[in-house]
Amino acid sequence: MNTQNRITQIFKIQHPIIQAGMVWCAGWELAAAVSNAGGLGIIGAGSMTPDILKEHIQKTKNATSKPFAVNLPLLYSRIEDQIDVIIKTNVPIVFTSAGNPSLHTSRLKEAGITVAHVVSSAKFAKKAHASGVDVIVAEGFEAGGHNGKDETTTLCLIPQVVDAVPIPVIAAGGIADGRSMLAAMALGAEGVQIGSRFVASLESSAHEKFKHAVVTANEGDTELTLKELTPVRLLKNEFYQKITTAYSLRANKDDLAALLGKGRAKLGMFEGDLNEGELEIGQVCAAIHEILPAGEIVRKILSEYENLGGQKLGGYFDFKATK
Amino acid sequence: MNTQNRITQIFKIQHPIIQAGMVWCAGWELAAAVSNAGGLGIIGAGSMTPDILKEHIQKTKNATSKPFAVNLPLLYSRIEDQIDVIIKTNVPIVFTSAGNPSLHTSRLKEAGITVAHVVSSAKFAKKAHASGVDVIVAEGFEAGGHNGKDETTTLCLIPQVVDAVPIPVIAAGGIADGRSMLAAMALGAEGVQIGSRFVASLESSAHEKFKHAVVTANEGDTELTLKELTPVRLLKNEFYQKITTAYSLRANKDDLAALLGKGRAKLGMFEGDLNEGELEIGQVCAAIHEILPAGEIVRKILSEYENLGGQKLGGYFDFKATK
Repeated sequence: MNTQNRITQIFKIQHPIIQAGMVWCAGWELAAAVSNAGGLGIIGAGSMTPDILKEHIQKTKNATSKPFAVNLPLLYSRIEDQIDVIIKTNVPIVFTSAGNPSLHTSRLKEAGITVAHVVSSAKFAKKAHASGVDVIVAEGFEAGGHNGKDETTTLCLIPQVVDAVPIPVIAAGGIADGRSMLAAMALGAEGVQIGSRFVASLESSAHEKFKHAVVTANEGDTELTLKELTPVRLLKNEFYQKITTAYSLRANKDDLAALLGKGRAKLGMFEGDLNEGELEIGQVCAAIHEILPAGEIVRKILSEYENLGGQKLGGYFDFKATK
Repeated sequence: MNTQNRITQIFKIQHPIIQAGMVWCAGWELAAAVSNAGGLGIIGAGSMTPDILKEHIQKTKNATSKPFAVNLPLLYSRIEDQIDVIIKTNVPIVFTSAGNPSLHTSRLKEAGITVAHVVSSAKFAKKAHASGVDVIVAEGFEAGGHNGKDETTTLCLIPQVVDAVPIPVIAAGGIADGRSMLAAMALGAEGVQIGSRFVASLESSAHEKFKHAVVTANEGDTELTLKELTPVRLLKNEFYQKITTAYSLRANKDDLAALLGKGRAKLGMFEGDLNEGELEIGQVCAAIHEILPAGEIVRKILSEYENLGGQKLGGYFDFKATK
């Protein structure tokens, strides 16, 4: 099986399976486990101080000799300090998200770092490409956590982004098994970024209670809400019901911000308060039924992908070559 | 190339491409053109009186010797009269939607008619299967027109529906080319139902102005709205802006129903009032750029599907066989 395409070549990895750098869930144990399995593990810096990020980078390096990445939300308050740490510790790959890629891409590139940027539209993909990033991650409406305002689904988004930019595209949102990986590759993606499935892994730093909530969720159990602030897809819990009540009482933006407050993501996902916490997860959680080691998740998805026909198609789809 | 699977066998068609039976856009000319090209053409009865439906069925029969279907929204006020016409004119296939399939499926089946039912969740797919339908159409959040409350996207929906029922599943929502067809088949669908792309066909009965609006729409130009009434995905026009204003003024359900009034779908899609009409279309309209003959659309999608690898996979995916 041909296991090389532009994504595996650029990242120097075996398989184009990327583990999303989720806040509170993606520490060094998860990143190292995914990288050791031949995918790309990502440390989620969004929930880390620069010192804690430095510690996670060092531990990842101790646990794997393979490439890994750091996810950096560009709206983070101590972004310059985070970038200092990333450059000084020779992190090879950075995924940026939630912000303007033109501000920091050149500094990262000058340090020899490969840069991927997360977008929710073809318009933003073009801007990211113009700012010099190497790879686009196109994330659809079904994805967990923060999301775009256009609500374009992964199925509609990927072909439009692939047509809009010449650089390789990673599909995100709604991908959790070999079927959805094959679908994403058929749409022209050259890799998949998987979040929810890895939240439900042994090595994820999510609280056990949150992992359990993910694997027992049913269809319709998430919703993209708080659109007046930053749209976010949440598991429907007591806190979500409070949001619903606030809307029915005609809450405005300030009311919603006050209700959200601070620290709810940590409270829910990391500390396991399923009632009052903010539980960020993708729609595809309804199709996730077990907590497995992250390496086994990678191998299982790859095996399903190959059995479904990925192999017959000459390994990973190279859409650009067949178009 | 193996061009048979359960969908082509059940419907006795050449290719598993189904044209959605869209209100105001899918008359006999479109249905006959798609059936003549080897797909399944569907007459949209939702905008027809029983007499007009009878006329469209007769004209379809005059224009093609191949199988065709009628789409029947189950909430239609003269549903019994519609079913009388369908049975008396020997329509071979009926697609039911927007209602409870347990009410009319047995009558249709007793008349020897093949029945497909449109759902938006695995839960409703199981109910439809229990009511005796032959085929499930699973329609995602990105689809145009009326839609489910769970907002599950096609990428997340199809694998869950395929796993929930033993009967074949047709994917709907977000499909407009060979890439998205291949993605849907990779997810386990055995056919695709395509709406928006056929609105923009020569034979569609949509007004020329609406067709033009569809092929010039950009990403983010549709939204699922009026969720308090029946959720519907609309192209953003002046009427949509009025809905947005109503929401900002904290309109309730009655206010929204009054604003919607009656006859806006006909006004917009059939009579071409792009300002005041209700313009039902899918998210994928952003990827549709030309108005083509319906038969050419079928051939183009098939050709793209085969070039992408559908052929290498032994024709149409048979997910059940490869799982």
